[in-house]
Amino acid sequence: MAKGTFITIEGSEGGGKTTQLALLAEAYKKRTGETPVVTREPGGTPLGEEIRKLFKDPNNKLCPETELLLLQASRAQLVRDVIRPALDAGRTVICDRYIHSTLFYQGFGRGLDQNIIAATTLLATDGVVPDLVLVLQLPFEKMLERVKKRGNLDRMENEASDFFRRVQAGVDWLAESGSPKVAGIDADQSIDAVQRDIIGALEKHKIFGIITL
Amino acid sequence: MAKGTFITIEGSEGGGKTTQLALLAEAYKKRTGETPVVTREPGGTPLGEEIRKLFKDPNNKLCPETELLLLQASRAQLVRDVIRPALDAGRTVICDRYIHSTLFYQGFGRGLDQNIIAATTLLATDGVVPDLVLVLQLPFEKMLERVKKRGNLDRMENEASDFFRRVQAGVDWLAESGSPKVAGIDADQSIDAVQRDIIGALEKHKIFGIITL
Repeated sequence: MAKGTFITIEGSEGGGKTTQLALLAEAYKKRTGETPVVTREPGGTPLGEEIRKLFKDPNNKLCPETELLLLQASRAQLVRDVIRPALDAGRTVICDRYIHSTLFYQGFGRGLDQNIIAATTLLATDGVVPDLVLVLQLPFEKMLERVKKRGNLDRMENEASDFFRRVQAGVDWLAESGSPKVAGIDADQSIDAVQRDIIGALEKHKIFGIITL
Repeated sequence: MAKGTFITIEGSEGGGKTTQLALLAEAYKKRTGETPVVTREPGGTPLGEEIRKLFKDPNNKLCPETELLLLQASRAQLVRDVIRPALDAGRTVICDRYIHSTLFYQGFGRGLDQNIIAATTLLATDGVVPDLVLVLQLPFEKMLERVKKRGNLDRMENEASDFFRRVQAGVDWLAESGSPKVAGIDADQSIDAVQRDIIGALEKHKIFGIITL
């Protein structure tokens, strides 16, 4: 069994995942003295970062099946080279997107069969699943607005809004699933307020003790 | 149902697949007047060729699961963008490696579970399978000798010889499976003799008529 703690950050585009992850890593270090291993999907290994480029390039044409298989290929390498070794060494790992993004985008969004998503996820993860999933939720219209502001959209960000509406349904479904491993976080607040809620979720899940520095 | 004919060339490293495929495409055109669609795996699409580079690069570290998933990602795009449209248009397609290479290398060679190979193959191919599989067979020692002569070995060619011995067992198993869709070809002959046997296999399988120009 893994000895370290594995936290993933999931959610809508434009929900501030990357910002919140950096703040969380900092807060984690301040509270525990430990520097967590921070990684991301797709990516996180030399091969995975190459896959990320192929995946995001707006000039690349990818059918839904290829999308799923590329993501799982990146994940298989990330689990074996980064996540599992870190957990086995007792480290805390925080990952920007993981298995639930596959469910949102390739499942809810692309409509791929849940069985093949489950089978390829099992192959890729070899059973390494998060201890806590932080799901950043943003109202649909706000999400679209934030993504459009970015300019230079990547292949996924260029998708039509009905695709994102289905993705959003997946995000909301997970956040409201009642799973003890899942914490829904309202991302339609200030950066500080979102981070406070994230810290609250870690305390509630006993990842941070209630009495802290 | 597909209207065109789908031929794959499989087999050992160093068996002369690429040379034989080029000769077959030429012979096919001479006999039928039709230029076949020639493609390869991994590769055959802009994305697939990028995947091919990642796959072959000796500096890349790939776990067996990532190997399988990357190959299937390339295949899913190739089937949808090249193979199926060509077959639907009544064209003949000749592919350098296809689903049986996955069986040889990731199944027999890497020892991955047959069920996940089958499930991901079905996802990638969507049921597009060859009408004739030409399996080029070479004795193991001869294969090693030919690969070593190449110099500048790619990631797969650098594998230890016990890996190739397992791959070879897969090649021989398929060639001798007795499947009506499979033709074992002795590749330990002159280029001309191998090509003659390939043409013979196409005639036997009624892909070429017996009476030809």
